[in-house]
Amino acid sequence: MLIALLTDFGTRDPYVASMKGVIAGRCDATIIDLSHEIAPFDVFEAAFFLDAVMPYFPGARAGAVIESLFIAVVDPGVGTSRKIVAADLGGQLVLAPDNGLLTLVLERDPRLHSVENEQLFLPGGSATFHGRDRFAPVAAAIAGGLAAGAVGPPIGSDQLVRFDYSRPIYGSTAHGTIVAIDRFGNAVTDLEVSRCPDLSRSIAVIGDRRIEAFAGSYIEGPGGPFMIAGSRGTVEISLEQRSAADVLHIERGQRVEIRPR
Amino acid sequence: MLIALLTDFGTRDPYVASMKGVIAGRCDATIIDLSHEIAPFDVFEAAFFLDAVMPYFPGARAGAVIESLFIAVVDPGVGTSRKIVAADLGGQLVLAPDNGLLTLVLERDPRLHSVENEQLFLPGGSATFHGRDRFAPVAAAIAGGLAAGAVGPPIGSDQLVRFDYSRPIYGSTAHGTIVAIDRFGNAVTDLEVSRCPDLSRSIAVIGDRRIEAFAGSYIEGPGGPFMIAGSRGTVEISLEQRSAADVLHIERGQRVEIRPR
Amino acid sequence: MLIALLTDFGTRDPYVASMKGVIAGRCDATIIDLSHEIAPFDVFEAAFFLDAVMPYFPGARAGAVIESLFIAVVDPGVGTSRKIVAADLGGQLVLAPDNGLLTLVLERDPRLHSVENEQLFLPGGSATFHGRDRFAPVAAAIAGGLAAGAVGPPIGSDQLVRFDYSRPIYGSTAHGTIVAIDRFGNAVTDLEVSRCPDLSRSIAVIGDRRIEAFAGSYIEGPGGPFMIAGSRGTVEISLEQRSAADVLHIERGQRVEIRPR
Repeated sequence: MLIALLTDFGTRDPYVASMKGVIAGRCDATIIDLSHEIAPFDVFEAAFFLDAVMPYFPGARAGAVIESLFIAVVDPGVGTSRKIVAADLGGQLVLAPDNGLLTLVLERDPRLHSVENEQLFLPGGSATFHGRDRFAPVAAAIAGGLAAGAVGPPIGSDQLVRFDYSRPIYGSTAHGTIVAIDRFGNAVTDLEVSRCPDLSRSIAVIGDRRIEAFAGSYIEGPGGPFMIAGSRGTVEISLEQRSAADVLHIERGQRVEIRPR
Repeated sequence: MLIALLTDFGTRDPYVASMKGVIAGRCDATIIDLSHEIAPFDVFEAAFFLDAVMPYFPGARAGAVIESLFIAVVDPGVGTSRKIVAADLGGQLVLAPDNGLLTLVLERDPRLHSVENEQLFLPGGSATFHGRDRFAPVAAAIAGGLAAGAVGPPIGSDQLVRFDYSRPIYGSTAHGTIVAIDRFGNAVTDLEVSRCPDLSRSIAVIGDRRIEAFAGSYIEGPGGPFMIAGSRGTVEISLEQRSAADVLHIERGQRVEIRPR
Repeated sequence: MLIALLTDFGTRDPYVASMKGVIAGRCDATIIDLSHEIAPFDVFEAAFFLDAVMPYFPGARAGAVIESLFIAVVDPGVGTSRKIVAADLGGQLVLAPDNGLLTLVLERDPRLHSVENEQLFLPGGSATFHGRDRFAPVAAAIAGGLAAGAVGPPIGSDQLVRFDYSRPIYGSTAHGTIVAIDRFGNAVTDLEVSRCPDLSRSIAVIGDRRIEAFAGSYIEGPGGPFMIAGSRGTVEISLEQRSAADVLHIERGQRVEIRPR
C-alpha cells in the first residue's frame, strides 16, 4: 500500500519527519510526499490539491482493497472537539480533519467513519500534533490490515464541515471559480474545457479583465494573456513564461465566466 | 533498515541527490528525508530537530539491531581535521560531524566511534563534500551489515565538541530556553510541561514580555499570546493563526521562565 | 530500478505528486526526488544538476541493464512539436524534452530514441502536462521491462537541441564558465582542478574581480574570497560562511580564467 502525505507543515520543522518515523515503524507501506507546502491553515488549497492527484494514484477506480491511503493534515483546530474522519472510497482512503478538507471527496459518496478508537493512537499523545499521534498510527494500522470500519463509528456525510464552494454552472456562458494559482502563475479554473463554449471563439471574464485569446500550448500564445486547456482538464489563464496571476491581478476564489465572443 | 537524512543543503543543489545515489547503489535501505532546510551551518537547529524525531523512529527503545540510521550533515568544517562520529544507541545510530551536532545525543550515553576507515569512503573523494563521499557510503556499509565498531576506533565522549546549552532547571520557578521557532511562529521551549508549575496558574517571562494565558489548543486561546503544551511535551508560546515569535519578538536561544502567577 | 525525478515544478502544486501516483501505480521502481526546485524554465540549471548527480547513481559505469532512470522535466515547450527523447547510456537512461536539457548527456554518446509510441501514454492526456501523461507512464513501462528502443524511432544526435555552452579550454591559462551558484553562495566553475595550473600559485579572474587566495576547506580561508577544489572536482570561488556570489557579484554563465600569479 502507498501512504501519501499532504500537510501545511513545511519541511524545516520536525513534524513531517516524526510522522514518517511513526509510519515506518509500524507498517511496510511506501511513504510518498505529496506536498508539505500547502499554505498554513489553507484547507481549500489542500482540498483542491487532493482532488487533482487522487485520480492518478492506485485504486482510483475503486475496488475491494485500499491501494492508496492519503493523510491530509491541514488542521488549525487540532486538539479541539473537531473530528478526524476516514473517508473510504474502496480503492483509496483519505484521513483528514473535519474542517472542510473533505469537501470535494464527499461528492464521491465515501463510506465515512469518525476516527475515535483510542487504542490506535500513540499512548500519551499530545493535543497539538495529531498528525504524528493519531493520523500516522491509524494509517499504519490500516496499512497493516485493520478494516477501515474499525477506526470508529460511522458518521453521516451531512454532519461534516464543508467550505463555501459551488461547482460550476454550464450553459451558453459557463460560470466558475479560480481554484488555484500555480508556481508558474497559471490561474487554474474549475471549468471543464469539454463543457465550455469553444475556447477559440470565447472570452474569459474575471472581474474587469477580459482574456480573448486561446493557445494550444504555453509558448504558442499571442504575447498577451490567453486561455489554455490545463492539465486538470479545466480552463487556465496563462502568459508565456510570466505569471498571469501577477500581471492580471487574479486571485484564488475569484469568479470567472467563459462566454462566446 | 531506514536511513534518514538531515542536512542544511536545501534541495535545489545536487548535494542531497548525490547522497541518495550513493546510498541506493550500495544497499537496499529505505531512504527517508527528514529535512534539508536546516538553516545553513545551524548545528543547534539540527541537534534539536534530531532530538524531536528520534523517539518516533524504529529502534528508539534500543535493542540489538540498528533499525534507524540517521545521517546528519550540517558541517561547516568539512575538510578540516574535525572528526566524523558514529554514535550507536543500539537500535539507532547517528553519523554526524564532531561540531556540537551530537550534543543532545551524547546525553543518552551512546557507544562512540571516530569514522576513519578510509576503505569505506568513496575512492578519490573530495575535501568539500563528505556527505556524499564519506557519510553516505559508511551508512550504506552499516546498512549492509558492517558492525558499527568497524568504522573506526572508539572515542571518548569527553573528547567531543558540545555547543553551549544547559538543560532546564525546575523548581517553584522553571528556567529554560527557547529552542526552536516553528513555521507557524510557535516559540518552542525545552521546559517539560509535566515538571513546570501548573500552566493555567502561571506566567511565562521572556525578556520583558509576560505571557499570562494558557490554552488547550491552538484555536482556543484568549486572542492574545498564550502558553500551550506542545508536541514535544514542552511549553510553547503561541498565538492563534499568527506568529507568536514575530509579534512578541521572541528569538531562539532566549531564556524563558515559568512561574506561578 | 530507481526512477529519479528532476523538475522545475516546485512541490506546492500537485504536479510532482501526480507523476508519482502514475509511476507507483504502474511499476514497483523506487522513486527518488532529485530536485523540484530548478528555477522555472531553466534548462541549463537542470542539465548541470543531472551532470553532477548521474555519476553517483547505480548504473553509472554502463552495463547491460538499466539501473537508474532519470526523468527530467523542465519543459516550457510542452504541447508543441518539440520531441521527448530517451537517452540510453546502458546502465542509466534519461527521459527529457528536446530543448537542450540533454546537452551534456549527449557528450557521452547515448543511444537516442524519440518517444512517440502513443500506446504508452495516458489515454486522453493533456497538452500541458507531459510529465504526468507521457514521461511518467513511459518510465514506468521501461521499469516494467519494456526495451528502451520500443518507445519510438531512433533519432540522430545532430537533430537535437543544444544550448550555447563550450567545454573549458586548458593551457597555461584555463578558460571556463561559472556553471552554478549553490545555496551557500559558492560559485561553481566547470574547470577541473586537476587540469588547471596549481591553484595555490594562481589567480582566478572573473570580469574585473581577481581572487588570489586558495584554501583547502571552506573554513580555512584567508578572510576574503578564495579558490577551493569543489565536490565536482572543479574549482569553486568561496567565502567563509558568506555568499561569494553575492559579495563578488558573480553570476552563472560568466567566464572565468585561472592563470599563474
